[in-house]
Amino acid sequence: MPHRPPASGPDYKMVLVVRGELRLTAGKAAVQVAHAAVLLAHEAEKRAPEAFRAWSATGQKKIAVVAPTLEDLEALARQARALGLLWVLVEDAGFTEVPPGTKTCLGIGPAASAQVDPITRSLPLL
Amino acid sequence: MPHRPPASGPDYKMVLVVRGELRLTAGKAAVQVAHAAVLLAHEAEKRAPEAFRAWSATGQKKIAVVAPTLEDLEALARQARALGLLWVLVEDAGFTEVPPGTKTCLGIGPAASAQVDPITRSLPLL
Repeated sequence: MPHRPPASGPDYKMVLVVRGELRLTAGKAAVQVAHAAVLLAHEAEKRAPEAFRAWSATGQKKIAVVAPTLEDLEALARQARALGLLWVLVEDAGFTEVPPGTKTCLGIGPAASAQVDPITRSLPLL
Repeated sequence: MPHRPPASGPDYKMVLVVRGELRLTAGKAAVQVAHAAVLLAHEAEKRAPEAFRAWSATGQKKIAVVAPTLEDLEALARQARALGLLWVLVEDAGFTEVPPGTKTCLGIGPAASAQVDPITRSLPLL
């Protein structure tokens, strides 16, 4: 998998925001991040093909971060929508650590870093 | 995102195997798992459309597990290949925790659980 970005051109990324208050295990959090990434990549290929291509050509960069609460995820989703960015809020089936339908992770992008960084760069890494 | 599997029909899953000896942070491991999941979903849609549809219809189930070494990942990849299952071995760009080109995570599937469980069910959850 070629992950090395080229020397020039804008940087593209997908930002995956895990809901910190759920205190998921590393494995459960990883699966929620992967759910969001797969859904967004699939949507982007259809609805934002230029962003999808630019992101793929630069190694499909992904960043996993944390926001404390569901309200934080929803506020970020509103900001993403206002910027015209793709986003998805994952609901878990809830067979293990959380009740069914629990919203676990917000994914945003893929998008140019210049677009998404202003709303996500203050969030700590997962 | 509808994750609830139907009451009947075979169970499908994607298994994401993180390389334990790298001792990645939760966030770095989550991103490697997501890289593998996105690559496999994209491949499956083209090369194994029936498995992709069955997996999507049952909530795109994913399991994140750990195997200790690169040799373990490579042995699992050989077993997946022998079974005719899709697999991908993710190489990280290595800007943070690991050197560039480090193999971090093996993804297998999506596949019927009856096919993939025999080679992965002994692995501990991430």
